Amino acid sequence: MTMRRPPRRGEAAERFREGRRERMSENGERRVVIYDTTLRDGTQGSGVSLTTEDKLKIARALDELGVAYIEGGWPGSNPKDMAFFERARHQQWRHARITAFGSTRRAGGTVEEDVNLRLLLEAETPAVTIVGKASPFQVRVILGTTLDENLRMVAESVAFLKAAGREVIFDAEHFFDGYAEDPDYALAVLRAACDAGADAVVLCDTNGGTLTDPLVRAVRHALSSVSCTVGIHTHNDCELAVANTIAAVLAGAMHVQGTMNGLGERIGNANLCSIIPILEYKLGYRCLPPGNLRKLTETSRYVAEVANLAHDPRLPFVGAFAFTHKAGLHVNAIAKHPSAYEHIPPEVVGNTRHVLVSELSGRSNIVVKARSFGIELGDKPEVVRRVLEQIKELEFHGYWFEDADASLELLIRRNLPDYRPPFEVLDYTVLTEYRNGRGMLAEAMVKLRIGQHVFHTAAEGNGPVNALDRATRKALQEFYPEIAAVDLEDYKVRVLDDHHGTGAKVRVWIRSGDAHGSWNTVGSSENIIEASWLALADSLAYPLVTRPELAARIPELVSAVS
Amino acid sequence: MTMRRPPRRGEAAERFREGRRERMSENGERRVVIYDTTLRDGTQGSGVSLTTEDKLKIARALDELGVAYIEGGWPGSNPKDMAFFERARHQQWRHARITAFGSTRRAGGTVEEDVNLRLLLEAETPAVTIVGKASPFQVRVILGTTLDENLRMVAESVAFLKAAGREVIFDAEHFFDGYAEDPDYALAVLRAACDAGADAVVLCDTNGGTLTDPLVRAVRHALSSVSCTVGIHTHNDCELAVANTIAAVLAGAMHVQGTMNGLGERIGNANLCSIIPILEYKLGYRCLPPGNLRKLTETSRYVAEVANLAHDPRLPFVGAFAFTHKAGLHVNAIAKHPSAYEHIPPEVVGNTRHVLVSELSGRSNIVVKARSFGIELGDKPEVVRRVLEQIKELEFHGYWFEDADASLELLIRRNLPDYRPPFEVLDYTVLTEYRNGRGMLAEAMVKLRIGQHVFHTAAEGNGPVNALDRATRKALQEFYPEIAAVDLEDYKVRVLDDHHGTGAKVRVWIRSGDAHGSWNTVGSSENIIEASWLALADSLAYPLVTRPELAARIPELVSAVS
Repeated sequence: MTMRRPPRRGEAAERFREGRRERMSENGERRVVIYDTTLRDGTQGSGVSLTTEDKLKIARALDELGVAYIEGGWPGSNPKDMAFFERARHQQWRHARITAFGSTRRAGGTVEEDVNLRLLLEAETPAVTIVGKASPFQVRVILGTTLDENLRMVAESVAFLKAAGREVIFDAEHFFDGYAEDPDYALAVLRAACDAGADAVVLCDTNGGTLTDPLVRAVRHALSSVSCTVGIHTHNDCELAVANTIAAVLAGAMHVQGTMNGLGERIGNANLCSIIPILEYKLGYRCLPPGNLRKLTETSRYVAEVANLAHDPRLPFVGAFAFTHKAGLHVNAIAKHPSAYEHIPPEVVGNTRHVLVSELSGRSNIVVKARSFGIELGDKPEVVRRVLEQIKELEFHGYWFEDADASLELLIRRNLPDYRPPFEVLDYTVLTEYRNGRGMLAEAMVKLRIGQHVFHTAAEGNGPVNALDRATRKALQEFYPEIAAVDLEDYKVRVLDDHHGTGAKVRVWIRSGDAHGSWNTVGSSENIIEASWLALADSLAYPLVTRPELAARIPELVSAVS
Repeated sequence: MTMRRPPRRGEAAERFREGRRERMSENGERRVVIYDTTLRDGTQGSGVSLTTEDKLKIARALDELGVAYIEGGWPGSNPKDMAFFERARHQQWRHARITAFGSTRRAGGTVEEDVNLRLLLEAETPAVTIVGKASPFQVRVILGTTLDENLRMVAESVAFLKAAGREVIFDAEHFFDGYAEDPDYALAVLRAACDAGADAVVLCDTNGGTLTDPLVRAVRHALSSVSCTVGIHTHNDCELAVANTIAAVLAGAMHVQGTMNGLGERIGNANLCSIIPILEYKLGYRCLPPGNLRKLTETSRYVAEVANLAHDPRLPFVGAFAFTHKAGLHVNAIAKHPSAYEHIPPEVVGNTRHVLVSELSGRSNIVVKARSFGIELGDKPEVVRRVLEQIKELEFHGYWFEDADASLELLIRRNLPDYRPPFEVLDYTVLTEYRNGRGMLAEAMVKLRIGQHVFHTAAEGNGPVNALDRATRKALQEFYPEIAAVDLEDYKVRVLDDHHGTGAKVRVWIRSGDAHGSWNTVGSSENIIEASWLALADSLAYPLVTRPELAARIPELVSAVS
């Protein structure tokens, strides 16, 4: 029997090599140039807004990951983008070239007088990317100019930037729609850019509507029509952005544009976090410096964090659910052989396996689970028995530990003889009030004990749980300033029982995170405030208890107030 | 100039027809059978948990959309799934066949004594789907049996179910991994099922790791090896589930398994909300009854709502961002021509474009909807305009009226000249308190005006919303004793925005009922108490306003306290 999992690197690629133009590195590796446009096209996504400092942080992380190009922004579009280029100029970049983005000159104008082209040069980047239209419909109806003038705009703009000593990448906007409309014209646009000296022409599926087979045919036609590097830039409107990018590379495109986590306008751009592991690990291309594929998950998380977006757990390869197993059948199989329900080992991309155990019926499950938290219970049968009893009791009362590892770990640790609570809650009160003409008011008071200190705080919030959260942090931060960095990333409420209306039991689930990672906690009660409080208290206790540098500061236990 | 947007239906399909086995309907349409497994494989996703009632609601919506099969669950795995089949049996299904899912008989046993197969028959569905392994690695290492015994398990189980008069669909688990390992064995498993009478064999990429080209080769080989219908079932671990499904259909597979919104284990299953519009609109296949593609967006939203999941705005085709335009450049182009940055017209899938344009098309919808409530607005254009404005404003603030008809009816009635409010709220206050040793306390005070009477009440509850509910009823019952019969049957809370943790906006949805029927209301706010109150107030106002015998008792309007 051949055990084919994980697939040998490059194995599948062997079969697709025919007909593809290859760019070999010195040691014979097939390379694909990764061009990241998170900072430009990625910021067109709804809810994405980056400061100059955010952009620099993300650019440094991308450089560390090892992408070949980082498109920093559009200096002609806003001053924030120009500020990025001014600061980027003074940075040392290990792997990446910074590129500035702009459009070809305006119709009817000259390159010398074009404000947009001048600003592109003022960005002083080693490479520039300019976009021009490759669809007759777009040229006539949207630009309102002639097909010939559009070809001159492309050629003159490329030549102008080349004459200024820049590497020039030409983005052929609407290339695939244009090719479907009039292949000759779409290809003429590419040739105009190439003949004027462009280093690469990039075929863009701007509206994201092209299916894979026609896309591949157009890529092949482009490859046989121009001599410079051909790149691919896709959008995810048909959920095909990754597939189309991979197909284009297999057809011979050697430059790939995309964004981290697939951020971007409408549904998003092609997701580099899926494309890179497929190309490197499954198809044997070189995309990143050797060894760097393992940084993918942390880079993906970091970008989401800086962009102030929740890290989607359903991201392929890098999401929290990518190697999470729930079904009983599958968990049994995973126990027999880890690869039974995994297409790659999670560590390849720096991710980890999660096994959700809803009914922790067996003692051995508890021991295995505790071990994954770094706690050895094999020699502590009494602790295992108590933990099991508590889980059973809590699940009866509506808890569900399946997706709340942090609460489960705390429950186990609280049963260890050396456990010291990072804080004890004495009292809390939440008031929500509506008075005609005054609007809603939510206010909380919290009294905590940490060691021998008692902290009594009050805060307002835009709702009762938010007020309670704020008052609690206010108290904790006096002793543990690090708690300020913890964000509540997600908050969910589930009503467990349909039969009692507003008196039903509710379960609150919280995901919290900071630069070190994210963790999930749970609380359950008939009172939504109490359920929220229980999940909230665990989410704040978790980093204090589990990080050695914080745990070391927890004071010795003093007798609790009864 | 040819304006090729949107592409003509079936145009692209013309070019791919060669080599594909076609299933023509009577009028010569190419059909693909849509097999929905949201209720079974979809529930394997993290955070997905459905009650029997939820499952029935989703099944009815899928039937209304017009999918061919609805896989209801695994009767052998839990009593909740068996309860679904018991209730489903008594429903009228317009388009769909209900199927029960299970596995082949156990290794070494007999079909007659197999508990799982017996429960499959007890589900009494017209079709059953059984899963068997098509990978030697899985058979030997995970099942722990021989390759020959596995073939017997498949053949005997299929034959047993066929003999009981069922349509039988065979899911070949790990087919593509198995095919890469040992093509002869993987195909032998398919033949064993087919020869035993299976109506369809479905090729499963269980781990989601197969790339498109090798997948297509394996599909072609399967098609040339068996005579029954061949189906495809993919997972999204490489972000290729949709691409792989489309490629398999173009290669000749005529049965597609997937889930609404791509719900499912790990990253999820193939997303039917992307597959259906690509197949129907872009490739000219028939998947749904004519005209039903327009129901796709509302069905997608409804499934998310019932499953208590946020409806991902980045879902292709059906998400809120699918036709949302942010970039200045693009919005200007959109103003010139709507299709400039859209790959299809949003209305094809029942979605809408989000740019700032007044929505005149909604007026006739309001008139029709009002008529369903017994309100004639055809002659009241000013009321229709105001109602539309209010809906737009409220939906911007997180309301969603799709599954809250009672709140929508109240909103319309409040705009009618003869509307009299059944009560007016003046003040309310809710206190939640935890004091060491006293346990949790929740208490509410409510001050209402009904006509010229002011009622001021207080009540305790097991949580703040329950306390508010009780205090409000106490006040209302003094004037409307019938309100005592109204029960709160269900209460759901949804967090609308991941970005602000406990400060996020929440939407509360309530179902209330009494002997006359049940009705749904909605409220939204950053404050969970306020959101609950808004939904609660509507749920109590609804019977008072809409039942003639109660409405007749509503006092004449007196001037409200400012």
